Amino acid sequence: MKKISSNKVFGGEHAQYTHWSEANNCEMTFAVFLPPQMDDLSELKKVPSLYWLSGLTCTDQNFMQKAGAFKRAAELGIAIIAPDTSPRGENVPDDENQAYDLGLGAGFYLNASEAPWREHYNMYDYIVKDLISDVDEHLNLSTSRAISGHSMGGHGALTIGLKHPELFGSISAFSPICNPTNSPWGKKAFSAYLGEQQDTWLQYDACHLLEHATEPQAILIEQGSADDFLDEQLRPESLMQVAQKSGHSVQLHLREGYDHSYFFISSFIEQHLEFHAKYL
Amino acid sequence: MKKISSNKVFGGEHAQYTHWSEANNCEMTFAVFLPPQMDDLSELKKVPSLYWLSGLTCTDQNFMQKAGAFKRAAELGIAIIAPDTSPRGENVPDDENQAYDLGLGAGFYLNASEAPWREHYNMYDYIVKDLISDVDEHLNLSTSRAISGHSMGGHGALTIGLKHPELFGSISAFSPICNPTNSPWGKKAFSAYLGEQQDTWLQYDACHLLEHATEPQAILIEQGSADDFLDEQLRPESLMQVAQKSGHSVQLHLREGYDHSYFFISSFIEQHLEFHAKYL
Repeated sequence: MKKISSNKVFGGEHAQYTHWSEANNCEMTFAVFLPPQMDDLSELKKVPSLYWLSGLTCTDQNFMQKAGAFKRAAELGIAIIAPDTSPRGENVPDDENQAYDLGLGAGFYLNASEAPWREHYNMYDYIVKDLISDVDEHLNLSTSRAISGHSMGGHGALTIGLKHPELFGSISAFSPICNPTNSPWGKKAFSAYLGEQQDTWLQYDACHLLEHATEPQAILIEQGSADDFLDEQLRPESLMQVAQKSGHSVQLHLREGYDHSYFFISSFIEQHLEFHAKYL
Repeated sequence: MKKISSNKVFGGEHAQYTHWSEANNCEMTFAVFLPPQMDDLSELKKVPSLYWLSGLTCTDQNFMQKAGAFKRAAELGIAIIAPDTSPRGENVPDDENQAYDLGLGAGFYLNASEAPWREHYNMYDYIVKDLISDVDEHLNLSTSRAISGHSMGGHGALTIGLKHPELFGSISAFSPICNPTNSPWGKKAFSAYLGEQQDTWLQYDACHLLEHATEPQAILIEQGSADDFLDEQLRPESLMQVAQKSGHSVQLHLREGYDHSYFFISSFIEQHLEFHAKYL
């Protein structure tokens, strides 16, 4: 694991690292925020962390530069880990039309089974295995973790969080793709990465996973009412219906007039940090 | 004046506008943050504003997306106006080598006297005349204003603020170029835009202007100790010496370990908003 940049911010540190991912079969870049408490705590009392999964077209830097999360994270003593959104590099295939919603910048937090994607597009295993294990080994954080994300990354946070309550104690999402098997973005990506057998898609659909979840988890969803993708792509109402039917508790904040941008995320990220802090 | 984008943020609005600039002889883009108080106040009680001048390579968006200023600005009821850093467009010349520190993205907040720059590179008049007058006419803000900026924009804030106490009641700057006539960035830009007659440069040098300032003004400077440009380009110690010699009061916060980036700005922008709020 190699540190490639470092900046002091709110008394803590923002840094970028590269490391080899077995799952993605390529070098990956991720960013971290380490709160100032890191310096004061003993080995016995480590700081917890929030894993943030970004949306389509993003890198490890969008959240770090635009979310305005560090002030409150520094106060609460929470580290933030922000991976890239897809494998990258010379040997990694992209969509032939370089579409923004497939290939580079559009990994969808799944393990691809189809050519030409399956050799590198395994973001699910990358997060759950490679990233967590390298962070645990090198950064001296506690194993108390939360997960959150935006849009495609909200889908990632919901699905990975629901499948791994042993790794993540609380889940939140901004403008998540809640039901990708019924959204144009999800259908396009899942067809390409997973093939046309739609029953294999369900393991990456938050609605399906919540319906079959056995362990209660704390889930908070933030959604802007002026989000251009709300009706066609995101479908939070589908997730709320499943929650109600299956007896799971999901908090949905519908925010009047807010859109899909980081201006929206920045307006409510502190509330999400406070939500997660209750469980960390 | 045409609105080209709008986002709700912290209960207020981030928006971008384009308008014609007589000074720059081209269409200019600028961004604003309008706090939620705009909706509640009567014509008689308008909100004050902070003009933010960005550094080399920036547009109207860097501060708006990265500074994390809106939460506190919304609480304090301060609007923020962020212009671009140079003229732009098809007819606007750039440096022949497309250097980052001359031409596009590098207007240095002066009025150029030399060819090929003088037709368009008049950012000083653009701020002081065109921008303020269009904002005043269209956005319904009070005439109580503060000015701040970063690096080249810190130079802009200091020089424009010092020359116009009637327009700006308080001045602050992050990592400003304090003495451009003695810095490589300043010498390169002033030679090109103003010619080799160095006495014409002094009207755009904060050290010279502070030495001859007759009106006391509130000035706050934030500087990181790990800033790579500190010794060669920025020289805050020169400004502090002039302040001491001439009896002007300038507060300098030297911040241990912070660099030249927006991570630094975001860490202290709230304190600058609070500083300006005392005078607005």
